[in-house]
Amino acid sequence: MRLRLDLSYDGTDFAGWALQPGQRTVQATVEDALGTILRVPTGLTVAGRTDAGVHATGQVAHADVATQVWATIGGSLLRRLAGVLPADVRVRAVAGAPVGFDARFSALTRRYAYRLTDAAWGSEPLRRHDTAPWPSRLDPGAMQEAASHLLGEHDFAAYCRRRKGATTIRTLQRLDWERDPSGVLVATVEADAFCHSMVRSLVGALLEVGAGQRPTTWPAAVLSAGARDPHVNVAPARGLTLLHVTYPDAAGLAERAALTRRRRSAIDGCRQLG
Amino acid sequence: MRLRLDLSYDGTDFAGWALQPGQRTVQATVEDALGTILRVPTGLTVAGRTDAGVHATGQVAHADVATQVWATIGGSLLRRLAGVLPADVRVRAVAGAPVGFDARFSALTRRYAYRLTDAAWGSEPLRRHDTAPWPSRLDPGAMQEAASHLLGEHDFAAYCRRRKGATTIRTLQRLDWERDPSGVLVATVEADAFCHSMVRSLVGALLEVGAGQRPTTWPAAVLSAGARDPHVNVAPARGLTLLHVTYPDAAGLAERAALTRRRRSAIDGCRQLG
Repeated sequence: MRLRLDLSYDGTDFAGWALQPGQRTVQATVEDALGTILRVPTGLTVAGRTDAGVHATGQVAHADVATQVWATIGGSLLRRLAGVLPADVRVRAVAGAPVGFDARFSALTRRYAYRLTDAAWGSEPLRRHDTAPWPSRLDPGAMQEAASHLLGEHDFAAYCRRRKGATTIRTLQRLDWERDPSGVLVATVEADAFCHSMVRSLVGALLEVGAGQRPTTWPAAVLSAGARDPHVNVAPARGLTLLHVTYPDAAGLAERAALTRRRRSAIDGCRQLG
Repeated sequence: MRLRLDLSYDGTDFAGWALQPGQRTVQATVEDALGTILRVPTGLTVAGRTDAGVHATGQVAHADVATQVWATIGGSLLRRLAGVLPADVRVRAVAGAPVGFDARFSALTRRYAYRLTDAAWGSEPLRRHDTAPWPSRLDPGAMQEAASHLLGEHDFAAYCRRRKGATTIRTLQRLDWERDPSGVLVATVEADAFCHSMVRSLVGALLEVGAGQRPTTWPAAVLSAGARDPHVNVAPARGLTLLHVTYPDAAGLAERAALTRRRRSAIDGCRQLG
């Protein structure tokens, strides 16, 4: 049977989500904990493969386990994971997934936050792990205006690290900037999916606008050029957190997964399908 | 002339505010930074001398410096401090203080937050440094009811670590519990001043009520007994943050400081007056 796991982590001391030989990754840490408790190797498939240093409060993964194992251990699994896992990664919930659920391919949207401070004194110490400092005053109004020209379905190749044979067409549904009550600038960014380094590249381009170094039309001009622009800096991983992944209701799950697979396959022979 | 400094710190790696030989303290760290920048030893007087592991987002201190030094360096002091201080302590603001200002004796009230989670999965990783975990479900309604019987002016000796010749009479103005949107239990606690370990002892007693181990009348019964109760556990430092210190307007400052000194002196020959 298939389990859905909801996870949070402080990415500071992880080399990202995905397994890498000799590196401390979130995937390896959680798979090891599951293996210890379930006494059988257990692989995870994840909604958002976050990079080194990126955090999550709403990551979702799935794992397939024997029905017998779940019947025996299910009731105590959450508490056992809390005891085995290090404090910088937590499994917040674990439950049997509805038929057709795939953490990656059933997902409708991913939502991220990017936290940034332009205070001269730096980042609030208790939030320094997820708030990137910026050395000069930023104009969130200009960043918001520039962001509005990026919304919708586009080929985001200019904002993606190239990955052979993978599409870079995405639908950006939301990119809003606001100053929270403490003065921190928070971007909320939502899309059907993001290609590699896309959120941080978008934030990097908008920072140039916010700092007054580029006009508000520049990020959209970069997008239209369609190729990776060396003038776009990738914003630091520290400010980025995966907040939430949305899924269709139970009836729509398998249909969505099949659609996602077909679409990616049709467009470019998506790498994951071999 | 006198400067007012507003400070934030993550108390995790500090042995508290106050200077202690051979220990990394907030006071020593900030005084060293000021000494480096101003090129003259500079002492700090603080509103709330927090214990080891306790945090602050709204600490206030004062320092006396030569007018000439301030005239030369004042404009760049905030940025220089940001460059010299480690990331776990920040000076958020520095300015000339009004006549009569004393960070400690002019203060009208201190406000603290205590953050606590009773989720089976533990503390949110990005907030684990300022959120104490509790191993079983808590009832915030019962904790709120118990807290209501503690409000007002009392001798809080039962909740204070004894300090010879210091009064333990305090006015507790607020002690509210609420679950925030993420499910974390947050106590907001405000008083004219707090004696040593008072907030954490109050929280420790209320936790017994929240866990169903004591009736809601118990914390007030402990208070009435008037002596340190060995059944009251001091809650972990990790959950406690000094949020805010209030002061009278400029006209009331010196008057307030004199009143505080007189009152403490009259009651018990306050240690600070020798």
